[in-house]
Amino acid sequence: MTARIIDGTAIAAQIRAEVKVGVAALVAEKGVTPGLATVLVGDNTGSHKYVSMKRKACAEAGIRSFHTELPATATQAEVLALVQSLGANPDVHGILVQLPLPSQIDEAVILNAVPLEKDVDGFHPLNIGAIAMKGRNPMFAPCTPAGVIELLDRSGTKIDGADAVVLGRSNIVGMPASLLLIQRNATVTICHSRTKDIKGTCRRADILVAAIGRARYVTADMIKPGATVIDVGTNGVDDPTKPGGKRLVGDVDFEAAKEVAGAITPVPGGVGPMTIAMLIVNTLKAARRSAGLPAKAI
Amino acid sequence: MTARIIDGTAIAAQIRAEVKVGVAALVAEKGVTPGLATVLVGDNTGSHKYVSMKRKACAEAGIRSFHTELPATATQAEVLALVQSLGANPDVHGILVQLPLPSQIDEAVILNAVPLEKDVDGFHPLNIGAIAMKGRNPMFAPCTPAGVIELLDRSGTKIDGADAVVLGRSNIVGMPASLLLIQRNATVTICHSRTKDIKGTCRRADILVAAIGRARYVTADMIKPGATVIDVGTNGVDDPTKPGGKRLVGDVDFEAAKEVAGAITPVPGGVGPMTIAMLIVNTLKAARRSAGLPAKAI
Repeated sequence: MTARIIDGTAIAAQIRAEVKVGVAALVAEKGVTPGLATVLVGDNTGSHKYVSMKRKACAEAGIRSFHTELPATATQAEVLALVQSLGANPDVHGILVQLPLPSQIDEAVILNAVPLEKDVDGFHPLNIGAIAMKGRNPMFAPCTPAGVIELLDRSGTKIDGADAVVLGRSNIVGMPASLLLIQRNATVTICHSRTKDIKGTCRRADILVAAIGRARYVTADMIKPGATVIDVGTNGVDDPTKPGGKRLVGDVDFEAAKEVAGAITPVPGGVGPMTIAMLIVNTLKAARRSAGLPAKAI
Repeated sequence: MTARIIDGTAIAAQIRAEVKVGVAALVAEKGVTPGLATVLVGDNTGSHKYVSMKRKACAEAGIRSFHTELPATATQAEVLALVQSLGANPDVHGILVQLPLPSQIDEAVILNAVPLEKDVDGFHPLNIGAIAMKGRNPMFAPCTPAGVIELLDRSGTKIDGADAVVLGRSNIVGMPASLLLIQRNATVTICHSRTKDIKGTCRRADILVAAIGRARYVTADMIKPGATVIDVGTNGVDDPTKPGGKRLVGDVDFEAAKEVAGAITPVPGGVGPMTIAMLIVNTLKAARRSAGLPAKAI
């Protein structure tokens, strides 16, 4: 059997088109143009590239973007003041502080200064707490985990009642993805470096989400036949045939895994494009809420 | 094999004795007497009993208690004003709003009004979020889940690397207990009513935490031989031989389960006494923090 390939690029494009329609409707109905502020501190090449991709996606969807760059030597007080001023700016509906921040800056202090209703990344602990609790209304689902859920939904994978295994318990992917899967009535097992029998545990998963940052760690024998595999990993491996001598692979050994899985995301072109798509979904949500409309964006 | 019985009454008494020592030390060192405010709205008999047990435990440990009762007809504004005034009172280090609240009152609004540093119940979403995230400092662990962890630690059950299954995903037990077990490096599976194979899943657990509120739901065939079983359930079942015609049983079929498990908590006398013990631990923590000392209480 060869797995169905879940095309994250196509699904993300579809979501971005839906956001564009939603933005136009908001402008028409309320005269409000959603705005996203991006904050970049220092000169990390990867961060520059990500921010520029995010701003491009905003422009295509009709979202205004506000960009500020601070030097790598910026103080915590300077970054904090910037975030606070964006927090007070009514044209800014979402604030994205690109991580990582330089080491002299306390990431938690900066992220906590983003007003909850503008936390389009969804990383505020109050938001994470609301996702963990029943009957609370989280403002936003964090972008990458929300993208994982969209990939499952739009590829026809049933989440309700499924046995899901999440490999990795990071703040930005593993833990929030687990919480979102629980919300959707999956039975979730969270695995990590201290798990006794990772292979056996993964092999029980109807839905396997790999987010541990180890190149091709998930081998074919760790996958239940027919399972849906979502590969969140992006690991650079040596490849002399590529420009720069590197290429990107996921946490899953894709070539072997696709012979066992029922559906699988490739890397690149799987989860990657979803993060930006969900960021602009969250920005539209934030703008709709600020205009007094229900948050549902797409 | 007959399981070791984990004596929650004895362990709770030990913890309460340790708190008493800690309170005396705080009074001696800083002249600060820890204070717990209890708020009771309405005339629920169970709630009256719980609050009076909590106040008794405070008195025994040298903790001052401040008690306010409001009638069942109290408005949300009245309850909110009371909580805010306790929040501003420097002699009050912890605030406990006894649940359930009458239906005219929005529980989330009241609980969110408890200042985070006085939230000795540990239910504030910001606190739950911090428990879910790495590198954050939650103020308090919620009392019953913290009691579960203490029972495991003090009965010599190794949590690190263990396969733990939590039955139930409630805001006050299942979910926070799962998060605390993940923090302690267990591999955690969260089961609930939508789980496909509850029996098979439970049978894989080295640590089984039952918190679903169904009398004797966990049968002996759901327990891995030698597992540690923590029974959080308290269910009234008919028993004509008892005063009132009822007696309390757990979520686990104790008599059969103890022939399979390695260690098990009884009901009553297991998790029950731990909740109040951990409440006074949290109150001491809050008072230590307010006096500028490290929070570690016992």
